[in-house]
Order: sequence, then structure tokens, then C-alpha cells
Amino acid sequence: MQKNNKKAVILLSGGLDSATTLAIASAVGYECHAISFSYHQRHCVEIKSAIAIASAANIARHKMIDIDLAAFGGSALTDDSIAVPMDNPDIGPAGAIPITYVPARNTIFLSYALAFAEVIGSFDIFIGVNATDYSGYPDCRPEYIDAFEKMANLATASTIGGERRFTIHTPIIELSKAEIIRKGTSLGVNYSLTHSCYNPDDDGIACGHCDSCRLRLKGFAVAGMTDPIKYQGGK
Amino acid sequence: MQKNNKKAVILLSGGLDSATTLAIASAVGYECHAISFSYHQRHCVEIKSAIAIASAANIARHKMIDIDLAAFGGSALTDDSIAVPMDNPDIGPAGAIPITYVPARNTIFLSYALAFAEVIGSFDIFIGVNATDYSGYPDCRPEYIDAFEKMANLATASTIGGERRFTIHTPIIELSKAEIIRKGTSLGVNYSLTHSCYNPDDDGIACGHCDSCRLRLKGFAVAGMTDPIKYQGGK
Repeated sequence: MQKNNKKAVILLSGGLDSATTLAIASAVGYECHAISFSYHQRHCVEIKSAIAIASAANIARHKMIDIDLAAFGGSALTDDSIAVPMDNPDIGPAGAIPITYVPARNTIFLSYALAFAEVIGSFDIFIGVNATDYSGYPDCRPEYIDAFEKMANLATASTIGGERRFTIHTPIIELSKAEIIRKGTSLGVNYSLTHSCYNPDDDGIACGHCDSCRLRLKGFAVAGMTDPIKYQGGK
Repeated sequence: MQKNNKKAVILLSGGLDSATTLAIASAVGYECHAISFSYHQRHCVEIKSAIAIASAANIARHKMIDIDLAAFGGSALTDDSIAVPMDNPDIGPAGAIPITYVPARNTIFLSYALAFAEVIGSFDIFIGVNATDYSGYPDCRPEYIDAFEKMANLATASTIGGERRFTIHTPIIELSKAEIIRKGTSLGVNYSLTHSCYNPDDDGIACGHCDSCRLRLKGFAVAGMTDPIKYQGGK
């Protein structure tokens, strides 16, 4: 594998988008330092997936940060009193922002990634946001990522003087879910280790009906592949 | 007191800048919701000050968030192996960025404040950054705050459609430390509750020699007032 002698920080959620993003960063030669968050989310099974993916990818470091987004609530992913929508007909960029939106989540995640990058001397942050087959979240749009990057380059000591600057890499932002899956497969991603469901059962088995499961299943179908994870009811 | 029927989120550290900022927000009529962070900092005595200030100000809510910036290190304020500089001659905007800089700290704090604001329906965030009598931190500059505000308005569901937008208020950014102290005194801030030292002793008594103590002491001296807190050695 080629090496570029640069460190990258990769936001790794345990889902298929971030697993593919990690594989892309690794394939272009970065020394990969992953960061994952336990945010009291319902789908904490994702954390187990993140650990498994990081381990399989043999990366330089995997930092796990415990944060308390549930202190604020306001989302079906952090507040048990709000139900995760199932078989939602109104999915994707054209639809309303769903209740699974977590206020300022990517901003908080990228802020921690920025701190991590500055401490380890990295100027490259990778995030697996996607503006095509997504749930309509505002903090997945290219204009948001551009604004974060501009802010990051004013926020930090390591860019004072202007010789180096941070780049927020979004290698899958324009890909369809099927394209992401094909790309990851070509790079050897083991999608059986990934997890996407917003509403898994107590054993961590995916529901197959939340927005995230439906986007994932459609992606595998369009790619002409079979999703290797289990679904409730044995789908 | 006048009321403007709007909620504000106030970053409250327990120092004199944020105590003054809270008093200003309250004086112009906001319903104030303070947010403080315990970040495993050496001067956790600041948290006790934040609680005392919030209590004295009789605000609507005080949210305390525990975050682990020590997981990264890289600063004298979060890493016990790095010494806090004492009697540093190279202080202020013209000097080098000191080792008390915490990577991406204000970005992480403002990101949480943004999440809190979005959940409670506030569009006004107050932060007591200061670009005059400060320690040269990049994330205290007006251009940084402007970039964060732009990013915040792309990050969040509540600004989609464009009818409302977030404002990051920095009411003391252009004031000298003496002007901040005079302003706060006129608004009834009890500075004996505040705490600024980077290096207090085990009883929480300020050292009088770190950058933060020296800026504070100079501010009171220029304002022609006596700092009501205790210093080590009874200064």
C-alpha cells in the first residue's frame, strides 16, 4: 500500500459510510487515527461495530470519547421518549428533517476531531457524510462542511502563520449508497462488521424498517449485492 | 428589569469575563440558560464559581456538561505533565500562543452551546471572549467567532428555511479588562464569586502569577478597584 507520511483523523461511527471512508483514507496512504463517540445513543451496538472495523483495518489508533448528548435530548436517537420512525415515506434530501436528527451532532463530532488532529499534528479530517442517499440532515451538506473547514482554520493555534491548514475530507459526499458499497467492496471493507440501524433489538439485530436500514438495504439491492448483516425476522 | 421574551444560552466558566457576559445578557432582558463544562481541568475550582455565579444571578437553568478534553492532552490546563507558565513576560495578543491554549476548546464549547440552544429554541449564544486583554488564543478572535456563526447557521435544522438565524454574541470582545470590571460592577456582578487562576493551590486560592491572574490583577488596578478574591501569600 502507498504511504503519504501524513496522519489523518477519521470519524468512525460503525456504519457503512464511515467504514468506507476509513478504507478510502487508508488506501491513499494516510496513517489513520479513528475517533468514535459513545453518545448514549440507542444504537450503542454501533460502538461495537466501530471497534471491530478499526481492529480489522489495523489502524494506528482508535480513540473512544464518551459524550452526553442525551443531556439535551431533542432527538429520537438520544431521547427514549421519542420514537424512531419506521417505514417513513418521506425520506431523503427532499423530505422534512426527521426526528432522528441530533442537534449539532456533526458539529460536536468534528470539533472533537479538530482537537484530536491538532494534538497529534494532523491536518486532515475525514468524515463519511453523504448528501445523496441521506436522511436530509443539514449537517451533511457540502456548504456546511465548507463552513466548518473555514472556521477550523481560524480556531486553532497550528494554523496561525498560515503555512498549514486543515482540510475536511468528504470522499463519499457525492456518491449514492450503491456507489459507496461498490467502492468499499473494491477496497476490501467487510460490511458484515458494520451496523446502521437506528432501532436494533436487544441483541443488536437491525430492524429493517428505519430510514437508515431502508437506505442501506436499497443500496445493496441497487449494487446487486446481498447485505451480509442480519435483520429481525431473518430478512 | 426589561424582558425581551427570548432565551439565551450563556457559556459560563466561572471566570470574571463570563460572569460579566451573563450579567449583560440578563440586563438586556434575555431568559438566561447557562452552560458550564467540567473538562478535567486543573482549575476545577472554576466549576464551583460557575455554580455560585449562576445561583446568585437567579437564572432559568444551569446545565453542567462533563467532557474529557484530557483524553487528548496537549495543554498545560488539561495535562498534568505540562507546567503552567508563571510571571510570563510574553503575554497578550502580540506574544506567542501560550501552552495554556487548549486545542479547539471554544469550538467544542460553542458546539455544545449550539446543541443546547437548538433543543430549547434559543437563537442567541453569549460567549465572554475578549480580544484585548487576553492570552493570545486564536479562538478568541472576532474573525473566528464570525466563522463559527456562519457554520452554525448551516449546521442546524432550526435555520432551514432561513427565517431565524443564530447569533453568537460577544459583548466584551472589544473591552479592556478594566472596562469589563467596571461594566460588571455597574450591573451588580459579585466578583468575589469568580475565579480566574490557572494554577490555584489545593484550597482553590489563586496564585497571582499565571497569565490569567496577572491580567485580572492588572484589570482591577487600572479600574481603580481592589480584587475581592484571595491570593496565595495574602496579596
